Amino acid sequence: MYRPEIKVIDCTVRDGGLMNKWQFSDKFVRHVYNALAEAGVDYMEIGYLSSESAFDKNEYGPWRFCFEKDLQRIIGKEEKKIKLSAMADIGRIDLNDIPPRSESSLDMIRVACYVHQVDAAIELAHHCIDKGYETTINLMAVSTLGIRDLNEALNDLDKSRVPIIYLVDSFGAFYSEDIDTLAQKYIERLPEKTIGIHCHNNQQLAFSNTISAIINGVNYLDATLYGIGRGAGNCTLELLLSFLKNPKFNVRPIIKCIEDEVFPWAEKIDWGYSVPYMVTGVMNQHPRTAIAQMESENKNNITEFYDSVVNGSESV
Amino acid sequence: MYRPEIKVIDCTVRDGGLMNKWQFSDKFVRHVYNALAEAGVDYMEIGYLSSESAFDKNEYGPWRFCFEKDLQRIIGKEEKKIKLSAMADIGRIDLNDIPPRSESSLDMIRVACYVHQVDAAIELAHHCIDKGYETTINLMAVSTLGIRDLNEALNDLDKSRVPIIYLVDSFGAFYSEDIDTLAQKYIERLPEKTIGIHCHNNQQLAFSNTISAIINGVNYLDATLYGIGRGAGNCTLELLLSFLKNPKFNVRPIIKCIEDEVFPWAEKIDWGYSVPYMVTGVMNQHPRTAIAQMESENKNNITEFYDSVVNGSESV
Repeated sequence: MYRPEIKVIDCTVRDGGLMNKWQFSDKFVRHVYNALAEAGVDYMEIGYLSSESAFDKNEYGPWRFCFEKDLQRIIGKEEKKIKLSAMADIGRIDLNDIPPRSESSLDMIRVACYVHQVDAAIELAHHCIDKGYETTINLMAVSTLGIRDLNEALNDLDKSRVPIIYLVDSFGAFYSEDIDTLAQKYIERLPEKTIGIHCHNNQQLAFSNTISAIINGVNYLDATLYGIGRGAGNCTLELLLSFLKNPKFNVRPIIKCIEDEVFPWAEKIDWGYSVPYMVTGVMNQHPRTAIAQMESENKNNITEFYDSVVNGSESV
Repeated sequence: MYRPEIKVIDCTVRDGGLMNKWQFSDKFVRHVYNALAEAGVDYMEIGYLSSESAFDKNEYGPWRFCFEKDLQRIIGKEEKKIKLSAMADIGRIDLNDIPPRSESSLDMIRVACYVHQVDAAIELAHHCIDKGYETTINLMAVSTLGIRDLNEALNDLDKSRVPIIYLVDSFGAFYSEDIDTLAQKYIERLPEKTIGIHCHNNQQLAFSNTISAIINGVNYLDATLYGIGRGAGNCTLELLLSFLKNPKFNVRPIIKCIEDEVFPWAEKIDWGYSVPYMVTGVMNQHPRTAIAQMESENKNNITEFYDSVVNGSESV
């Protein structure tokens, strides 16, 4: 039995772009767009919404910005086939640079924030709501929050007009029991909201933790093709669609797109499970040290890496 | 809080050997042996117990057979550091070739069987018990069993003298809810037995399903270094030890052994998540077609593979 409230959000271009500065070809993005539509996925998160002043256009590809002209080039002349989303980081988008929804191909803007940015995130999200967009707030790095900070953040989010709030396992640190506890807490403290989940695969738990979230009543589910994404990557879309029983989902176009578009990138950039990502996940740390390790010439020196992380966590 | 009844069984050499016909060097096996002992792992499954007549010694390495002289070469002159296990397949070991435990370095013999072999498995396991060994029966491919066959098998196993019965997800087909249901059923139907779990990683769920089993009261846990094993591989030992809170476990020797011994094999043989393994897992099929696909020159033609599996499953 499926739950019709469930929505799947593909983050392939947005989260995968963190690995290659969004240097995906139009062919790649268009194939992902068509495949997701054909597969019955609900939203395609096509990139970040950033102001031109925030990043160098010579260094970063179009999906760092999500300008309307670039979106139109992907959509083409036909009617849009799938809802489009963009993520906005606090401080990287000037409110004046956000067009009204009637002039944009975007349907949803998802605001990512750390706990100290919740007020700014609500302000930005309200601005997007007022411009006509669907909106979420994705509260990151919850695994590092004390109970008081989390309660206060949920309290603020509860009072906001933002209808969808994400539980985000930024560090890939959570086990299923953590997801049970937190999903239940979010649902209890945010009775009027829809809850979403975004997981990372540091401990090979992104997909299973997404399932745990579903069992607990979470309805917005993030995933990417073949798990592409920063570091250990994300919940794997082909696994998620195969798990969901809603007959509108069809995994074949996703498999075809992986074969044609994702495999070539897998030759050029590295993502997925490896010991350094596991170590930062287990230690509940930002993966930046593991990413640096994996990009270094000594990426296989995993014992040294383990020692450096453990010794850097001595009692204080 | 940890559960002292939990035992961890490493299957690196036994299950990993399915990928390379047990052509591991003595250096490899000795390093795994020392690392597991140092890490506090309870058992090392060092190979299969087979009669010389069953396999060609020129084709298969020593851990296809587990002769006493080979075991002794790994243990050396010091006292044995960790309990050793070997797996026995029905029909591949002559009962007369099994030495009494007093003359063997093996502590445990695990009998693997399909449902139609349960009687033969009990007979073999009783023989091993009578020769002094710890014994388990690992009932494979449970995901394909009808309820009557499973009940009858569990009934027979309940009446046996075999103290430990394994729930085996041979095809990597189970979700956490399947593990919940089956683990509870095994515990209920086998009230005097200890239950074990052996998972495969076709859907990236081997580790999380092992956690689900633990939560349900399963106490014997199989894993391998870096998940090495046939096809999509197994539950990853470094993840499992990091999850378990028993202070006797120490993950560092495992990481060192992965760096020194497993990484070189990862250059030569392929295991871990890939779309063909996912497809056979989702379809609840033996991975043999996926393994053939991954070993072929067309391993990246995953859409064709998907079609062949789905078209081969039309309504009959």
